[in-house]
Amino acid sequence: MSYKSDIEIAREAQKKPIQEIGEKLGIPSDHLLPYGHDKAKVSQAFIDSVQGNKTGKLVLVTAINPTPAGEGKTTTTVGLGDGLNRLGKKATVCIREASLGPNFGMKGGAAGGGRAQVVPMEDMNLHFTGDFHAITSAHSLLSAMIDNHIYWGNEQDIDVRRVVWRRVVDMNDRALRQINVSLGGVANGFPREGGFDITVASEVMAILCLARNLKDLEERLGAMIVAYRRDKTPVFCRDIKAEGAMTVLLKDAMQPNLVQTLENNPAFVHGGPFANIAHGCNSVIATNTALRLSDYVVTEAGFGADLGAEKFMNIKCRKAGLAPDCVVLVATVRAMKMNGGVAKADLGAENVAAVEEGCANLGRHIGNLKSFGVPVVVAINHFVTDTDAEVAAVKAYVETQGSEAVLSRHWEHGGEGAEALAQKVVEIAESGASQFAPLYRDEMPLFEKIETVAKRIYRADEVLADQKIRNQLKDWEAQGYGNLPVCMAKTQYSFTTDPNRRGAPTGHSVPVREVRLSAGAGFVVVVCGEIMTMPGLPSKPAAESIRLNDSGQIEGLF
Amino acid sequence: MSYKSDIEIAREAQKKPIQEIGEKLGIPSDHLLPYGHDKAKVSQAFIDSVQGNKTGKLVLVTAINPTPAGEGKTTTTVGLGDGLNRLGKKATVCIREASLGPNFGMKGGAAGGGRAQVVPMEDMNLHFTGDFHAITSAHSLLSAMIDNHIYWGNEQDIDVRRVVWRRVVDMNDRALRQINVSLGGVANGFPREGGFDITVASEVMAILCLARNLKDLEERLGAMIVAYRRDKTPVFCRDIKAEGAMTVLLKDAMQPNLVQTLENNPAFVHGGPFANIAHGCNSVIATNTALRLSDYVVTEAGFGADLGAEKFMNIKCRKAGLAPDCVVLVATVRAMKMNGGVAKADLGAENVAAVEEGCANLGRHIGNLKSFGVPVVVAINHFVTDTDAEVAAVKAYVETQGSEAVLSRHWEHGGEGAEALAQKVVEIAESGASQFAPLYRDEMPLFEKIETVAKRIYRADEVLADQKIRNQLKDWEAQGYGNLPVCMAKTQYSFTTDPNRRGAPTGHSVPVREVRLSAGAGFVVVVCGEIMTMPGLPSKPAAESIRLNDSGQIEGLF
Repeated sequence: MSYKSDIEIAREAQKKPIQEIGEKLGIPSDHLLPYGHDKAKVSQAFIDSVQGNKTGKLVLVTAINPTPAGEGKTTTTVGLGDGLNRLGKKATVCIREASLGPNFGMKGGAAGGGRAQVVPMEDMNLHFTGDFHAITSAHSLLSAMIDNHIYWGNEQDIDVRRVVWRRVVDMNDRALRQINVSLGGVANGFPREGGFDITVASEVMAILCLARNLKDLEERLGAMIVAYRRDKTPVFCRDIKAEGAMTVLLKDAMQPNLVQTLENNPAFVHGGPFANIAHGCNSVIATNTALRLSDYVVTEAGFGADLGAEKFMNIKCRKAGLAPDCVVLVATVRAMKMNGGVAKADLGAENVAAVEEGCANLGRHIGNLKSFGVPVVVAINHFVTDTDAEVAAVKAYVETQGSEAVLSRHWEHGGEGAEALAQKVVEIAESGASQFAPLYRDEMPLFEKIETVAKRIYRADEVLADQKIRNQLKDWEAQGYGNLPVCMAKTQYSFTTDPNRRGAPTGHSVPVREVRLSAGAGFVVVVCGEIMTMPGLPSKPAAESIRLNDSGQIEGLF
Repeated sequence: MSYKSDIEIAREAQKKPIQEIGEKLGIPSDHLLPYGHDKAKVSQAFIDSVQGNKTGKLVLVTAINPTPAGEGKTTTTVGLGDGLNRLGKKATVCIREASLGPNFGMKGGAAGGGRAQVVPMEDMNLHFTGDFHAITSAHSLLSAMIDNHIYWGNEQDIDVRRVVWRRVVDMNDRALRQINVSLGGVANGFPREGGFDITVASEVMAILCLARNLKDLEERLGAMIVAYRRDKTPVFCRDIKAEGAMTVLLKDAMQPNLVQTLENNPAFVHGGPFANIAHGCNSVIATNTALRLSDYVVTEAGFGADLGAEKFMNIKCRKAGLAPDCVVLVATVRAMKMNGGVAKADLGAENVAAVEEGCANLGRHIGNLKSFGVPVVVAINHFVTDTDAEVAAVKAYVETQGSEAVLSRHWEHGGEGAEALAQKVVEIAESGASQFAPLYRDEMPLFEKIETVAKRIYRADEVLADQKIRNQLKDWEAQGYGNLPVCMAKTQYSFTTDPNRRGAPTGHSVPVREVRLSAGAGFVVVVCGEIMTMPGLPSKPAAESIRLNDSGQIEGLF
């Protein structure tokens, strides 16, 4: 049997006019700002008008530690959304936007896969509604204003060696990682070191995704630390007077984007912060708005549950006052096999023992998620080569962990294939079993917060950090930042900081290399390992074969 | 009597849904890709479908050399469009898009002024439909691919000292004018010098505005010279294999943007190349499309007629096969007075003698325009302090030059105020008097082309250029670029290269400092004076006071 590719399926989608999708959520067409016929932003006025509505149930989709086999977290998110709609629940999917730059290195990604996708896929991989461009603009304005401030007399006494605000561009451009700027003489300013990150790594992106409204956005932007003075006191964005103009540049980008699934159900695709140095979730404003328009909102978090779900709970839910009613933990038989030691090339053959061996990773995540007080259901995202015995092995294991695993065939059958999963989610969510609480209190000292995550989620024995790092955390506490949550930046492939250690390792240490304060976003970034904030292009970039063919279709992007 | 500001008038505009504006031009709503309710792109498929239509009349609006008094070229373009519509002609206005970056330095500009404006003004000064962001992206992709090519083995043998492709950003950021890139060690590439220009200075912008269709766009992008090899042969964009992906990034940006005048008449606002190192006109595709949908298309060219109209005729019309049926030369009584030696502070007082004295600048432009074989009408853009005697002096002078001057009150009265001008334009255009021909043949050697413009338009005695520059031009001729037109980059304030010499000077020389080959856009840039391709912000940038007020309106942008 042969299957169509994601892009073939996406191109055959019978899309409805976006106004009809909006209607399903009760959004009148004058409050839907169209971008073409299949994308729209929801007006700020409408968003404001529904804040008093009662809220629907919130379902988080997360996953085991990713393996090269692929887990299908977004696919499951979309399939579950369609499945819930089939059960007569008004369900909305909330996912992240894609970054443009990386698509020119490796091929672009679908939003979902198979029969569980969000469309228009090509637009979503290119400029979409311009949100990331707006973020790049706002970020670039502040960059220009900082050097301009220094140029015209440097009233704030910025130490040019301590400008922490890097520039951004939405492109994989390694040549810009480390640069010297303001060269060429008096007219161009005071030479200093600088560099560019990719746009999704911008603190502006994290802020846009955490801000509750435009007022909150402006305040958070103003609170960003951009440099330090000669006396080492921080210079804030508001000291440069940039936050007002940045807010103006971001006012449209703050409005969530509405698109549709292949089954014409609503999906908000909005925001896309890095999942390492930021929290990796779609915007609070999209989730909050969707909750006020739907019975169910299905959303996802970046990477595996040890990073993505932890940050969703400890950062996004904490900041936005959200509480998930159910968590869906996505696993695949293939990924279990890889965790059980099978090489990618051998995944096609039945291997129940390896599946059983690999389930330890799944079990650890189930336990971790339960420690937040939320009920967990495991979704086995079905792959066509999975055997009944392998699936049964996963189900049996999950039962020993006090949860249930449901086989879901949304990739092959769309919403219909996810009905059993949807049924289970409804049962759990409507039982009111969730008693969500974040893992630590705001008042806990910063280093203890790091230890809490490392010990309770990663199951490490200890956190290693220089005195310098411990002192830095103490300084921030003294400055009033002690109540912030921590944002862990660690490999996504393992519970440990070593990407090669699969399964459920114990007895490891978590070394902290660096800490950074994202004062506007409102978290302390804890860097445990190499973190790349400006990717490069490969030796044969995808861009070389991307083109429009004679019928105007894009080739090479997927 | 007090008048409302441009922004007050723009905010009070009774805009019609953009579909109704499209209907006036026969664009069906599925071929109108909306961006909100008041902006839309015209689909490529629709554009292709109307190429066989008969074309309307083309009217170019240009001006005398600009003075601080302001001439109102765009205001007249818009007013004339509305005036023609009032006469029952289906008229479309075609103007350029605004660059985002500079608005954060000095206050943003209206598209037109008073009762003759195009709306939505705020969007047009911010992200609009994302065209400039797409250009920045396409440009940035090529930048990244060049350094990536060098990084992965440099198969093309690019001399890192001779990379001529600079980066761009749509922001006034002087710190980026001259930088060193690829610092920080092996993983970041080979260190070299580089720099950023503002996006409107990108050759990609010039190409987007000259390309007839997507195929032509791709070919032109591929033909851009990005670097030279160690053996000094050129490396083209196509050698880096970037043109296909760049075209994909630009496919939406190639579709013209439809908006409306205050009187609900159609306006295409599309493209915005620099008027110095590029040709300074809106896109060929917008003008061509508008001509196939309208009885009249009113468009404008950058700067004064010596630069803007000359390039419109010798570059845009030549490349696109266009021919203007009538040229409107905009002048104001105040600008005549300034040309006659009056200081800005004294412009309020009647001074017929100064008006007469200043008319020499106007007369020279009339003569120049007629040398292209096109009939000229002078529009006196009325200012409320103009006296009857002053207006009469301009009219009398214009008559001595064999043309007619019409007083136009569109600023105060909109289309109604421009009816007399519109009537005159119709009379001229329908007389068939225009016998347009560019000033020089394609076959003329490059240096002779420069001399032709300098002597026949600027009325200089001679062109001064080093042997090195003359040799460079000869080399390009040997390489097959001799048939390109020249694109003069000179001060807009004078016929000479000295911005302080107003009026109609003679006996001057034109020194050529530098020549550049824009092989993709298809012209040789001739730099005669200081040209700034990356502006800086002032000591008190407008951005500092730009913000959203409590009712969500933008303050400080205008």
